Amino acid sequence: MLVASASSLTPYALRQQIRQGKFKGNTSGQAAGFVQCNLAIIPADYANEFLRFCQANPKPCPLIGMAASPGDYLISDAGEDVDIRTDVPAYQLFEHGEPTAKVPDLLEVWRDDLVTFMLGCSFSFEEALLADGLEIRNITEGVNVPMYRTNLPCTPAGRFSGNMVVSMRPMPAAAAIRAIQICSRFPAVHGAPVHLGDPALIGIKDISKPDFGDAVTIRDGELPVFWACGVTPQLAIRQAKPPFCITHSPGCMLVTDIPNSKLSVL
Amino acid sequence: MLVASASSLTPYALRQQIRQGKFKGNTSGQAAGFVQCNLAIIPADYANEFLRFCQANPKPCPLIGMAASPGDYLISDAGEDVDIRTDVPAYQLFEHGEPTAKVPDLLEVWRDDLVTFMLGCSFSFEEALLADGLEIRNITEGVNVPMYRTNLPCTPAGRFSGNMVVSMRPMPAAAAIRAIQICSRFPAVHGAPVHLGDPALIGIKDISKPDFGDAVTIRDGELPVFWACGVTPQLAIRQAKPPFCITHSPGCMLVTDIPNSKLSVL
Repeated sequence: MLVASASSLTPYALRQQIRQGKFKGNTSGQAAGFVQCNLAIIPADYANEFLRFCQANPKPCPLIGMAASPGDYLISDAGEDVDIRTDVPAYQLFEHGEPTAKVPDLLEVWRDDLVTFMLGCSFSFEEALLADGLEIRNITEGVNVPMYRTNLPCTPAGRFSGNMVVSMRPMPAAAAIRAIQICSRFPAVHGAPVHLGDPALIGIKDISKPDFGDAVTIRDGELPVFWACGVTPQLAIRQAKPPFCITHSPGCMLVTDIPNSKLSVL
Repeated sequence: MLVASASSLTPYALRQQIRQGKFKGNTSGQAAGFVQCNLAIIPADYANEFLRFCQANPKPCPLIGMAASPGDYLISDAGEDVDIRTDVPAYQLFEHGEPTAKVPDLLEVWRDDLVTFMLGCSFSFEEALLADGLEIRNITEGVNVPMYRTNLPCTPAGRFSGNMVVSMRPMPAAAAIRAIQICSRFPAVHGAPVHLGDPALIGIKDISKPDFGDAVTIRDGELPVFWACGVTPQLAIRQAKPPFCITHSPGCMLVTDIPNSKLSVL
């Protein structure tokens, strides 16, 4: 069973399997201990504005690295021999903000004006929380983390704008305080939560009905804790409607050679 | 006006004024930027157990320093020429756990078996929160911070035991998250909050009726945030009923030469 054994693969070996079409699935839980990234690949005409959007909104859009030049598909920042066209299990293509196709590689669609951005994802901080003994409800219940649109506006940059999307993990108060401490060490993967407690205060009308992902159980005495979410830049890109762009397919991330601990600022 | 000008005194100059009987009041706001300590002075027969109690319960009982030997009244850890018998504006004496007298110095009651403990106090972290632009309601409203008995048990040590007492400061969620980050840097002055949100979860029945201090306004959308409080060891000492012991009188702290920033672990 390839998938069962893959979690012990190095990031390099896993990327080779992906490149060869032998690993096609969700990267969650694979190459444990290494940073996985959200991908945004957009035309050069939009790239500087998107870079400014990331810098102005570091909690939802934590930029871990980017291609040095338009057209670059070898991303040395991400690790050994990373070819961004082939080393992610699945990609989503967009035209004018609308999804058009899900593809297993970018060899046929690559263009010389495409700029690659790698953004931090919650897998890294979830690993740090689990290592500390905290429970993460979406993992316990085996579902996708619930995500919600909020009324918290991002700082606009050029054609990029929109409200923040957040992920939610319910916790008892003492665990929430500990999670804030741990996540504060990792600003490159969304950092400390942006809100906790009453969902209505950030424009969430019904906590049992996430806009993305799955609902999870909130037990008596638990607080919903909200983190800025990587869906935020994806929606901002769709709203900006570039003629063409690419993201990873949900759950199919770029697995880098960067140890999670390298992202810790403390 | 001595009191009005005293805040610009150095800790040493303020202690000299106190020693000479020229400054007799509350030390809050005096010698800004320097650590002020709760005092516990107890007989040697109880001292080792109290030391273990502090070590087992560092959030309510953060030990900043102690006398090297029983009977020592010159406490060099606290600063230049600190005489613990004369350099605090007012002291509370206890016999068998009951208050007996409030006195301006300890010259007549000092004994060779008394051991001095200096414990961190919230003044230091309140200063760090204010410096970051956060509002502290008890300061805004010019009252004592509200304090509550909880159902959170301390770890017992010998004859010392009891539930934790907490102080409460209401804040919007984003400010509470920031306060957790800031206070996490200062474990020697109670550190991160121990709870936030529903007071009933830690055994507080009516948030508008503090057990000590004064009630403060909690606005719509604010969370009560609870910190471990230095009243905890005072109650534990009273409960242990040593034949004789001494604390500072509430609000009349030992002002040390230690800059608040020295307590930051990061």
